[in-house]
Amino acid sequence: MTFSRPGDPLVIFTPSGKRGHFPVGTPILTAARQLGVDLDSVCGGRGICSKCQITPSYGAFPKHGVTVEADALSEWNAVEERYDRIRGLKEGRRLGCQATVQGDVVIDVPSESQVHRQVVRKEASTRPIVMDPATHLHYVEVAEPDMHEPSGDLERLADALRAQWSIPSVTAPLSVLRKLQPTLRKGEWKVTVALHKGHRDEGFRILDIYPGFHEGRIYGLAIDLGSTTIAAHLTDLRNGSVLASAGAMNPQIRFGEDLMSRVSYAMMNPGGDVEMTRAVRAAINALAEDLAKQGDISPSQILEVVFVCNPVMHHLLLGIDPVELGQAPFALATSNSLSLDAAELDLGAMNPAARVFVLPCIAGHVGADAAAVALAEEPDKSPDLVLIVDVGTNAEILLGNTTRVLACSSPTGPAFEGAQISSGQRAAPGAIERVEIDPATKEPRFKVIGCDLWSDDPDFDAATAGTGISGICGSGIIEAVAELRLAGLMDAKGLMGSAEQTGTARMIPQGRTHSYVLHDGTADGGPLITVTQGDIRAIQLAKSALYAGARLLMDEMGVDKVDRVVLAGAFGAHISPKHAMVLGMIPDVPLDKVTSAGNAAGTGARIALCSVAARAQIEATVRQIHKVETAIEPRFQEHFVAANAVPHATDPFPNLNALVHLPQVSFNTQSGGGEGGRRRRASERAGT
Amino acid sequence: MTFSRPGDPLVIFTPSGKRGHFPVGTPILTAARQLGVDLDSVCGGRGICSKCQITPSYGAFPKHGVTVEADALSEWNAVEERYDRIRGLKEGRRLGCQATVQGDVVIDVPSESQVHRQVVRKEASTRPIVMDPATHLHYVEVAEPDMHEPSGDLERLADALRAQWSIPSVTAPLSVLRKLQPTLRKGEWKVTVALHKGHRDEGFRILDIYPGFHEGRIYGLAIDLGSTTIAAHLTDLRNGSVLASAGAMNPQIRFGEDLMSRVSYAMMNPGGDVEMTRAVRAAINALAEDLAKQGDISPSQILEVVFVCNPVMHHLLLGIDPVELGQAPFALATSNSLSLDAAELDLGAMNPAARVFVLPCIAGHVGADAAAVALAEEPDKSPDLVLIVDVGTNAEILLGNTTRVLACSSPTGPAFEGAQISSGQRAAPGAIERVEIDPATKEPRFKVIGCDLWSDDPDFDAATAGTGISGICGSGIIEAVAELRLAGLMDAKGLMGSAEQTGTARMIPQGRTHSYVLHDGTADGGPLITVTQGDIRAIQLAKSALYAGARLLMDEMGVDKVDRVVLAGAFGAHISPKHAMVLGMIPDVPLDKVTSAGNAAGTGARIALCSVAARAQIEATVRQIHKVETAIEPRFQEHFVAANAVPHATDPFPNLNALVHLPQVSFNTQSGGGEGGRRRRASERAGT
Repeated sequence: MTFSRPGDPLVIFTPSGKRGHFPVGTPILTAARQLGVDLDSVCGGRGICSKCQITPSYGAFPKHGVTVEADALSEWNAVEERYDRIRGLKEGRRLGCQATVQGDVVIDVPSESQVHRQVVRKEASTRPIVMDPATHLHYVEVAEPDMHEPSGDLERLADALRAQWSIPSVTAPLSVLRKLQPTLRKGEWKVTVALHKGHRDEGFRILDIYPGFHEGRIYGLAIDLGSTTIAAHLTDLRNGSVLASAGAMNPQIRFGEDLMSRVSYAMMNPGGDVEMTRAVRAAINALAEDLAKQGDISPSQILEVVFVCNPVMHHLLLGIDPVELGQAPFALATSNSLSLDAAELDLGAMNPAARVFVLPCIAGHVGADAAAVALAEEPDKSPDLVLIVDVGTNAEILLGNTTRVLACSSPTGPAFEGAQISSGQRAAPGAIERVEIDPATKEPRFKVIGCDLWSDDPDFDAATAGTGISGICGSGIIEAVAELRLAGLMDAKGLMGSAEQTGTARMIPQGRTHSYVLHDGTADGGPLITVTQGDIRAIQLAKSALYAGARLLMDEMGVDKVDRVVLAGAFGAHISPKHAMVLGMIPDVPLDKVTSAGNAAGTGARIALCSVAARAQIEATVRQIHKVETAIEPRFQEHFVAANAVPHATDPFPNLNALVHLPQVSFNTQSGGGEGGRRRRASERAGT
Repeated sequence: MTFSRPGDPLVIFTPSGKRGHFPVGTPILTAARQLGVDLDSVCGGRGICSKCQITPSYGAFPKHGVTVEADALSEWNAVEERYDRIRGLKEGRRLGCQATVQGDVVIDVPSESQVHRQVVRKEASTRPIVMDPATHLHYVEVAEPDMHEPSGDLERLADALRAQWSIPSVTAPLSVLRKLQPTLRKGEWKVTVALHKGHRDEGFRILDIYPGFHEGRIYGLAIDLGSTTIAAHLTDLRNGSVLASAGAMNPQIRFGEDLMSRVSYAMMNPGGDVEMTRAVRAAINALAEDLAKQGDISPSQILEVVFVCNPVMHHLLLGIDPVELGQAPFALATSNSLSLDAAELDLGAMNPAARVFVLPCIAGHVGADAAAVALAEEPDKSPDLVLIVDVGTNAEILLGNTTRVLACSSPTGPAFEGAQISSGQRAAPGAIERVEIDPATKEPRFKVIGCDLWSDDPDFDAATAGTGISGICGSGIIEAVAELRLAGLMDAKGLMGSAEQTGTARMIPQGRTHSYVLHDGTADGGPLITVTQGDIRAIQLAKSALYAGARLLMDEMGVDKVDRVVLAGAFGAHISPKHAMVLGMIPDVPLDKVTSAGNAAGTGARIALCSVAARAQIEATVRQIHKVETAIEPRFQEHFVAANAVPHATDPFPNLNALVHLPQVSFNTQSGGGEGGRRRRASERAGT
C-alpha cells in the first residue's frame, strides 16, 4: 500500500473514470488495483503475463482538467523491451506493471486488458456476456520448504496465494495434492494455479497446477441437456469464446422418446433410472472427448461444466429416480442450483478436479433449461410484455415483464422435432426445411438443408445430388401444414380434401384419408414424401399444447395479448414466424415483434459458465418467477381443445388477418376416429 | 422464546448449576435450551426419543435457597405413561420435554442425558473423552410439497431443519439426494437425518436419512494406520463406546518392511506408490467390513472415519507419492488436517456419504500419529516434564510441559515388533513375552501370550499345549536382552560369552558368535528359540535410535533428566519399564514415573472421532509443537553411537543403579564385522 501526499501526480483511468493521486514511481497496475480499476494480471505484476497492457494518452484533457506531458510515465524498461522484441507490443501500449507514474496521466484500459470484459454474442439483439468466471489462473512464487520450520507444500502455496493474491484460504482436491510436489519442484517454486471460487460460501479451491508461468488456456463446457439432443459448447474461460460445439442424440431415447415415457420406464423397470443415468453420463463423456479433440486441447484443460436441462433430465443426470416428477404434486428432489465435483457424476473425460454447476429448477415441470432461457432473455428486465417459447419435446414458456414473470411447461411431444411425422427426420442435410404451396396451382416448392436453392430452380437437382431429399424436419412440416391451410388444401379443422375436392393430383388417397405429395423421388429410388392427415394431427396436438400453455399464462397475467414473442430453442430458431402464426402456435402479434433467440437455454448455460454473478442472478430470478402448473389446470384443457383449429378458434388474430388470406374451406372426410384417439393420448400426457 | 416475569418459578439445573426463572408451563427441555444446559434430544421435544430424561429433586435445598414442593412439576402425562409402559422409565425420571415447570424446582441432568457426556476410558490415568461428535441425529417434520408453491424436497427439509433445529443451511451428497424422496414419503414427511457439522467453515451436510424417528445407531471408525499394523475401533458416535476392534497387517509390508524401503519402492518402481495406495485402501475396506460384521451392524451405519498415521502412510493413504519424505528437507505435500469424502479414498465399505478426518502432521518425519499421541497425552498440559515415546517401526518422541513441547521421530526399525530377530514373531498366542534369567543358575523362565503361568510352573506344558511356543515377540526380546545383561551373560557392549566364559550350557556356539538357548522344543518337533548375537545387535541399534532421539530433545530443551516417561504404542504398553531402563531405551527416571499409555495414537484417533472440539484443539497444539529433525542433526549420530552400550554409556543412571545390580563383565568375541555393518545401515536409515 502506498500513501499519497499532497502534490502527488493524478492518475485517471478510462473508460472507468476512476482517479487518484499516487506517489512518483507507483506502477500503473498498483494504482489500478488501489482504485479498483478492472485491469487484468495473471503474473501479479512480474512482467511475465502481459495481461495488464494499458495505453497512456498525452496532451491536454480539459474534461479531466489535466495536461499529460510526454514524460508522465517512466521510460520503457528492459522488461518491456524484451517483451516487445519477443512477442510484440501494440503501438502505444505499455505494460501496466512496469510503467510507473511520473506526472499527471490519463490511462486507457483496452477491453482485452479487462478481467470483466464483455463478450460480443452473435445475436445482436441480446445483451453481451460480461466475463466473470469462477476459475482464474494465478501465477505465484512459493517459499521453499525449511526443515526447521516444517510446513506442507500446500500450506506454503496457500501462504503465497494469501500474500500475493489476497486469497484468504484455499483447499486442494487429491488430484492436485498428487501433482503438487513434482509441479512445485519442476517450476522451481514458481507455479500457476487454476483457482476456482466456489459458489456462495464454498471458498477457493485449486483445480489444477502448472509449473512456472502457464500460458495454456482453460476451458469450460456449457451443456444443454435436452430430452432428444445434447448440445455442448467448449468455451474459453478467459474470454468466453466458443472453441468448438458439438451435439449428440440423447441415448436415453431408447428408453422412451418423451419425458413421461422415461419416467414410466423408471417406474416399470427396477434399476431403469440407473441405466438411463449411466447412458446419459457416458454420452456427455463422449461429447467432452469429441470437443477436446475438435478443439485440439487436452481433456484435462476442461475445468468447469455448466448444465441446463429439464427436471426429468436433471434428476436422471444426478442419478435420482424421476418417479415423483411423473405424478402430482411433481415434487423435485432438489430445486436449488447444485455445485458438484465432475467425479460425482462419473464425468471422467475432463480434469479430475473439474467442477459442475447445475442451474436451479423453477418447478417440477419447469426446469433449469427454463431458468437458463430466463437468464439469456431476461424477461424480468423487459419493459414490454414478452412471451418466450422454448420449443422442444417439452415446451418451456415464460411470460413477463419488469413487474412479474410467469412460467409453465407444456407437453408438446416430439412432433416439432420431426418425430411422429410420417416422413419426419432430424434437421440434417437433405431434410426439407422450407415449403411454399402456390394457392393457384397447388404445386409445392421447397428448400432442403445444405442447399440454398428452391426446388423449382433449374440447378436444384444438381445442387442436391449429394445429399438427396430424405424427409421433412420440424420447421419443414410446420411450413407445409401452414401452406396447406393457406392454399385451401386443408380446412380450419385440419382436414384435407380429396383430389376431386381440391382440384389437384398432388392429393392422393391414403387409407380413409388423403395425403399431400410434397416430393415424389420414387422414380430415382428415393422416398415419396407426403404430408398425411396423421402428420397434421400430430402437429395440431403439439401446437395446441404450446398455445394452451401460453394462453394459460396470459390468463394468469390477466391479458389477452402480448407485446412481443421470442422463439427459442435450436428448433425455434428455424421456425418461420408467419407460418407459426398461421398454424396458431403463438398468439397474434405484429410479425416484426416475433424474434428468434436461437438456443437460448444453451446461451444461458454459456452465460452461467462465464459469470459467477450471472449464477447468483438466476438463483434470485428463479425465486421470483411464478410457476403455473398446466397439468392440473382445467383451463389448460379448455385452451388445448380450442387451439386445435388452424388457426386457433377462440382468440382474434388481427395481425395475421392483415398479413395473409385464410381461405374459408371445408372438407368432408372420415378421419374422426383417429383424431379422437390421438387427442385422448395428449390429454394423458398432460396429466389430466 | 418465553419471557419470564417477576415471580416466575426458579429452575436450577445440576450438575451445571445454571438457573433461571421460567413461566409456569414451560417444558424443562425448553428451559434447559434457553439456559444452555447440556440436555440431549433427538426428536426436538416431541416425546419420541426419550433422550431428554431428567430427575427432579424434592425438598429443601438451603445451598440453592429453594424448597421444591411435590407439585413443582406438572403431573405425568399420557406421553410419559405410554413411554414408561412400553420402554420403562427409571424410578424418579421424567421426560424433559413433557414435564413442565409449576413451581421452584431443582433438576438433575443424568450423564446419559447429556450430549457432551464424558466417556470413561480404561486407562484411568488419562482424561475422559467429552462427547462432541461431528455427526448427530435429528428428527424433523417436513412440509409436504405444494404444486402451487413449488420447491424441492431438499429445500423443504432444509427449511424444517432451520425452523426446528436452528441449522442455518445444509447440503446433501448425491447418495442422500437419491434416497431423499422415497424416505420422506415412507416416513410420511417425518424423518431422522444424520447431520454432519463440517470442519472449520464447511457447514452442515446430511450424511444419511431414515424414515420416521430412527433409533438406529451411527458409528465411526478410529483408525491407527501404522507401518506394520492397522488398528481400527468401531465407535458409537452417540456415546463413544467401542463396539468392536480389529487389527490387520499393513499389506504394504510386501513392498518394504520399514517406511524408507517403501519410499524407495515408490522411487524405483513407476506406479509403485499407486500400488501401495490401492493395497492399504483395500485393507481398510476389509477391516471396515470385518468390524461391521463383528458389531452386527450395516456398513452403511459407519458415517465417519478418523485416521492417524505417520507421514509416509499419510501420503500413501491419500495417493500422494511419498518420494519427498525420503530426502531432505522432508517436505510434506500437506501438513494441515484434511476433511474428505470416504469415496475420494475409495473407501466403499461404509456409508457412501461417510466423511473422513485425517489429523494434521507435525513435520515430514513426525506425523498425524504423533499429533494423536499429543492429543491423547496432552504434554502441553503437563506441569512436570514428560517424555512420551510411541514405539513402533518408527518411534515418535514428544518432550514437554506447559511451557513448551518438542517432537522428533527416530528410525528404530522393526526389531521392537519382533521383526529382524532370529526367533522373532508378532505378538500373538505362543509368543514369548516375558523373560527372567536366574543370575545364579543362568537358567531362564518365561511366559507366553495366551497363558498366565510361568514356564517353570508344573501346569505350564499342559496350559500351552494348544498354542505351543512359537517364538519371541518384541517385549520378550527386550526382556531377554536385559536379563542377559543382568545375569552377567552379556557385557555392556552387548557381547555374549561362550559356555566356558559364562559357565552355562545354555550358551551355544553359532557361527563365530554365541547364542543363548531360551527354549528348546526340537524334541517335540518345535522350534529352538535362541537369542543370537545378531538379535542383540538389532535391539541395540533400535534402542540406540530411540534413546538418541529422546536425548536430542532433552538437549534442545536444555535438560539432562525428565520428570516422567510415558510408553505408548501397542508395543509400548507391554514393555517392562525396568527392562527398558536396563537396556537404556529410555532416560533414567524413578521406576514409578514410567507409565504406559497403551495405544495412545489410537486413543487420539478415538478422541478426534468423538469430539470436534478436540480436532480444533490438536490443530492448534500442532502449530505450537517445535519439531527437531533427527536426520540432519550431527548430535543425533553422537548420541546414537554413545547409546549403543547396555545401558548407555554417557548419561548417569542413579535410579537404575538403585533398582538393579549391573554386573561388570566383559567377553572377548569376534563379532566386530557384523556390528559395524549393521551400524552403517542404521546410519543410512537415519538419513545421514
